[in-house]
Amino acid sequence: MRTYISRFFTQGPADVREFSDALAKGLITPKSIVAIIGKTEGNGGVNDFTRELAIRALSEVLAPFLDLERHQVEDHIMMSFSGGTEGVVAPHFLVIWRIQEFEAPTGPKRLAVAVARTRPFRPDEVGHLPMVAETARCVKELMQEAQVKPGDVHFVQIKGAIAPFSPGQKAEPRNNMAYSRGASAIGIALALNEIDPTKVSDEAILQDWDLFSHVASTSAKPGLERSEILLIGNSAAWSGDLMAAHRVMKDIIDIEAIRSLFVELGFTGFPLTNDERQRVVGLFAKAEADRRHLLRGIRHTMLSDDDISDTRYARCVVGTLLVALSGVSACYISTRAEHHGPLGGGPIAMIARTDE
Amino acid sequence: MRTYISRFFTQGPADVREFSDALAKGLITPKSIVAIIGKTEGNGGVNDFTRELAIRALSEVLAPFLDLERHQVEDHIMMSFSGGTEGVVAPHFLVIWRIQEFEAPTGPKRLAVAVARTRPFRPDEVGHLPMVAETARCVKELMQEAQVKPGDVHFVQIKGAIAPFSPGQKAEPRNNMAYSRGASAIGIALALNEIDPTKVSDEAILQDWDLFSHVASTSAKPGLERSEILLIGNSAAWSGDLMAAHRVMKDIIDIEAIRSLFVELGFTGFPLTNDERQRVVGLFAKAEADRRHLLRGIRHTMLSDDDISDTRYARCVVGTLLVALSGVSACYISTRAEHHGPLGGGPIAMIARTDE
Amino acid sequence: MRTYISRFFTQGPADVREFSDALAKGLITPKSIVAIIGKTEGNGGVNDFTRELAIRALSEVLAPFLDLERHQVEDHIMMSFSGGTEGVVAPHFLVIWRIQEFEAPTGPKRLAVAVARTRPFRPDEVGHLPMVAETARCVKELMQEAQVKPGDVHFVQIKGAIAPFSPGQKAEPRNNMAYSRGASAIGIALALNEIDPTKVSDEAILQDWDLFSHVASTSAKPGLERSEILLIGNSAAWSGDLMAAHRVMKDIIDIEAIRSLFVELGFTGFPLTNDERQRVVGLFAKAEADRRHLLRGIRHTMLSDDDISDTRYARCVVGTLLVALSGVSACYISTRAEHHGPLGGGPIAMIARTDE
Amino acid sequence: MRTYISRFFTQGPADVREFSDALAKGLITPKSIVAIIGKTEGNGGVNDFTRELAIRALSEVLAPFLDLERHQVEDHIMMSFSGGTEGVVAPHFLVIWRIQEFEAPTGPKRLAVAVARTRPFRPDEVGHLPMVAETARCVKELMQEAQVKPGDVHFVQIKGAIAPFSPGQKAEPRNNMAYSRGASAIGIALALNEIDPTKVSDEAILQDWDLFSHVASTSAKPGLERSEILLIGNSAAWSGDLMAAHRVMKDIIDIEAIRSLFVELGFTGFPLTNDERQRVVGLFAKAEADRRHLLRGIRHTMLSDDDISDTRYARCVVGTLLVALSGVSACYISTRAEHHGPLGGGPIAMIARTDE
Repeated sequence: MRTYISRFFTQGPADVREFSDALAKGLITPKSIVAIIGKTEGNGGVNDFTRELAIRALSEVLAPFLDLERHQVEDHIMMSFSGGTEGVVAPHFLVIWRIQEFEAPTGPKRLAVAVARTRPFRPDEVGHLPMVAETARCVKELMQEAQVKPGDVHFVQIKGAIAPFSPGQKAEPRNNMAYSRGASAIGIALALNEIDPTKVSDEAILQDWDLFSHVASTSAKPGLERSEILLIGNSAAWSGDLMAAHRVMKDIIDIEAIRSLFVELGFTGFPLTNDERQRVVGLFAKAEADRRHLLRGIRHTMLSDDDISDTRYARCVVGTLLVALSGVSACYISTRAEHHGPLGGGPIAMIARTDE
Repeated sequence: MRTYISRFFTQGPADVREFSDALAKGLITPKSIVAIIGKTEGNGGVNDFTRELAIRALSEVLAPFLDLERHQVEDHIMMSFSGGTEGVVAPHFLVIWRIQEFEAPTGPKRLAVAVARTRPFRPDEVGHLPMVAETARCVKELMQEAQVKPGDVHFVQIKGAIAPFSPGQKAEPRNNMAYSRGASAIGIALALNEIDPTKVSDEAILQDWDLFSHVASTSAKPGLERSEILLIGNSAAWSGDLMAAHRVMKDIIDIEAIRSLFVELGFTGFPLTNDERQRVVGLFAKAEADRRHLLRGIRHTMLSDDDISDTRYARCVVGTLLVALSGVSACYISTRAEHHGPLGGGPIAMIARTDE
Repeated sequence: MRTYISRFFTQGPADVREFSDALAKGLITPKSIVAIIGKTEGNGGVNDFTRELAIRALSEVLAPFLDLERHQVEDHIMMSFSGGTEGVVAPHFLVIWRIQEFEAPTGPKRLAVAVARTRPFRPDEVGHLPMVAETARCVKELMQEAQVKPGDVHFVQIKGAIAPFSPGQKAEPRNNMAYSRGASAIGIALALNEIDPTKVSDEAILQDWDLFSHVASTSAKPGLERSEILLIGNSAAWSGDLMAAHRVMKDIIDIEAIRSLFVELGFTGFPLTNDERQRVVGLFAKAEADRRHLLRGIRHTMLSDDDISDTRYARCVVGTLLVALSGVSACYISTRAEHHGPLGGGPIAMIARTDE
Repeated sequence: MRTYISRFFTQGPADVREFSDALAKGLITPKSIVAIIGKTEGNGGVNDFTRELAIRALSEVLAPFLDLERHQVEDHIMMSFSGGTEGVVAPHFLVIWRIQEFEAPTGPKRLAVAVARTRPFRPDEVGHLPMVAETARCVKELMQEAQVKPGDVHFVQIKGAIAPFSPGQKAEPRNNMAYSRGASAIGIALALNEIDPTKVSDEAILQDWDLFSHVASTSAKPGLERSEILLIGNSAAWSGDLMAAHRVMKDIIDIEAIRSLFVELGFTGFPLTNDERQRVVGLFAKAEADRRHLLRGIRHTMLSDDDISDTRYARCVVGTLLVALSGVSACYISTRAEHHGPLGGGPIAMIARTDE
């Protein structure tokens, strides 16, 4: 198998012109697409409709190529958009596709991708152990399918389930975005042996911050019945010229983690040279304003601003660092990072073309 | 002469506890203070009252030491606060004071500071050549007073005059903040021989963006009759252990400019080591979202967000870079940078203790 | 002819479920629809994509009924959405359709509607007299077509042209939203003999605030080549049970204007009774924070808040009054009201079922 | 006793010019002042420092008249400022003072005011029954002191205690603003026999929304050890020309409640006449966006906007109604109304000069 990734910068959430051209010219094989992941210029909050607009526009373009109705496309391709391009992050999306090669690869490990859906979750399962377990099961299945070992997994993107809240119905206390993200992240950590399984309990979710994944990037979408999972790793069973790596930022300005990530993929330092920059295909991060209101012992004001959400600041900070240090403004960064790296920190990952 | 700078992190705009303690203990000589410059956690806009609150609190503490009324302190000490500690910038202020030494210095150039006020400006002078000329005259006077050569000036902070707008009165079209800042910056550039004086005209202000200063940091305060100017440079006539340097960022993510600034002051790279960090006394920047809506050819969305001002994004981006790359969260960064560096870029400066 | 209006409350910008049902059940004749006008829960600003999402969703539903492609529907039906349901205004839309009756009406004047497009405008025409003239010509044509006399026009909704701004190209100084709206409004006023034609000049646009229309509601959409116009009035040539009326609010809290509007349509006072409320079909307003920063001599703070746009406050204020006094939360209110009523005031209109 | 109220509109949070003049001219007896209550143009949130600025400015002016230090004034005069003058509410404050008369009054009931402080609360008492009980005890004491019967109490303003949150210390789960306001409101209701005392329990706080006060207006201030209470009512033991009345709005647009309030104080309807308007001295309200996301069965979007807080919308809506219907823009309105009126509604009150 071989993974291909095409990147498109957009002039608005519904801008599919270049993608449409690429499809028309046969530069992308539509039926091979497994996922589209991108950033739109919304606020990233409850009333961010740019994600819906982007997915609708992409689905409309893809539907005829897939012999589907517009609304069915999402059942076949995982589409995960995050709102919020604060600061210097550019609105863009990555189209991820994979093709069966004729010959088995013999070279080094190369980028492997795979997607799956969990079984549907009941409202009372969201944020509880059943969600953790089913998420872990799916991640393991994906590793098997893609022939990726736990240590070679570099990014796991989850669009997590939560039941829509029905007025009049008894609300499940954990049927909310925070618990859904937290349970999904712990599920990933469990599948990848990142944490001690005996420490995983209902009580630990959103409580024991020492339990975390180094490669999770989970969100939650009200109304989604099944969580959607995209696994990104390296595997000897795959060929091509792409590779992934990851690190965990200890805190929101941990530039040593960024440098170390760059170095692992063969880059020399900050900022990347022009040639090096051409090799960068994807940058990913999950960020959070430290809830202790402190950064390295000094007060930050991201959480005490009632005019602007801390999520916007957190994306702006980590996005700025990744964009400025790499010189690449196509960075997928999202926020609320429960059990994603240590408190106040978060995972970062990169996909790059090899320089060999 | 010798310059001293004391830094105070704050828990709120009116937090003067530690400063008050320092005065009480005699750690700062109140009558030697020439300027206090700081960041508060306001929005940096028209309705940001945190600056007024900070100045009021500081004045109240200083008044008895200076035998003045609270409201008179501002006439004797330049107090310049900028709202907006977006992201990882910490609310703080620097108290800058200077003391006459007994012996003339014989060593290398050391930090020199001086403050002055322009003559009062009429509303029809603001944003016009008379403001440019008077600002330039004052800056030259300050260089002479402090024995600093034009090439040794590293930061010029101006709190610029604009007449208050009186309802019913004919509004002067240039009596606004943008023109006041622009004229002040060109005045600095003129005094320091940074620009060709024959190109300076009324028409050039806010029009010819090739005219700019590398060391300006100007703001404008409605109701201020005279501009207040703080000049920061190095001089052989001064002693002590502080030095300043500056660079111009070509664009908002120009980390090479930051590295070069660090190197000039004897630091080895990114991020600063723990020891190096202890030497950093002040970080200063003026930033702006590129009005062409582009960063290195790719779209940015800082100017097309009607929920959040571009000034907040610009401060967050440059503040993040300076704080993350130095490891020092006390960074004075302000926005709207007309004629401060090239379009989309801006000046940065640092004051550090020498390592000798 | 007879006008029908169907109202749909929405659960999100793309919510077309009930509308879709109504079409499926044959309750609305798709080919008779002339306009859809509505409110979405966006910010009403440059980065409000909820309008695009709503129009896309509606177009997708309508396309098969009209034998059109999704993107062609807008060429046949005027769709005008305004973002911003601040406070108690409910997201909703009105579908306006008209049907040829067999017999000529013999009763009193009834609601008449008509839509048209201007010729395309060049960038240098936007905000200038050619736009005024062509808008006026179209409005007159619409009055003739619909057999509505100038005094019987109660609301003229314009989605005005402005050329997209191309980077690199010389910007036309008036090719912006404010001038487009202003020229459109003066065009309406001219067609309806509301103003002295000798006072209309290029200089008067956005300058002479005594020139205004009592029934205009204009917006501007970057990229729109031709302005789209919906005229709403009463006419003896139309039948049915709907009637319109309008007033001008002298200022943003002019509840006497609202009462007078209600009374004209046969209502008894504030708030409407349950029965009366059933008769209300549409509420329309154009509002603005008084740019003199004063309301009846007392300061308001809508224009000096850098966190929240004055447009959001203005919509919230007038929307609150119309919704609370009528008890009907489906109110179409938009902002920026250059030459729409006196400075600080603006037009309001209502469509109601007659009680006969 | 006799109550006097002086109203001052402000040009900024620290504007005390007119108040200062009034003191200098002897128009107000400083030592008779019991409370100052006002609105500033902040955001009303955690990072609203306009309240602190206003109180500091007022205290500085009052201190010499009271032979106190600036920071001691708050111990003698209750100063309660609320941020947020959204829409048409004007920044202003009311100075409330009372003077012992020589002769006992013989006429009808007149405005009575009294202030007190509770005992200090421990963090684990905030939001619990001890806070309810002590608040009720104080309110009863105030009624006794001012000779006001429970049915004659029209407004009880509480600035409620909450312990500052210390990092590292175990957080008390109810030591937050919502629980403090809720417990204070229930305390008022208990003292005034508005609720069945057997229904009051720890569990009922922020849970049983049928328990509410009709006259409460409570806030909470982190760091305040004792709650401060201002009681406003009518009493035969007081003289003067002022009277108070109150109503409860059933929902956020309940204009019948407003009309009924106006009528009780002798006004004829909406809007007040010029003469009537002169009689209005104070308008007060507590408002909240209905947490069920519905207003009279139709969706509102105040709670699903991540850019603007629902508190700003709620204040704008109720403020608009009170200001527009009365014609008086000096309206004290604050938000978060736990146990203040029914869910989605809230108390309103007015103080007016009698027309006799």
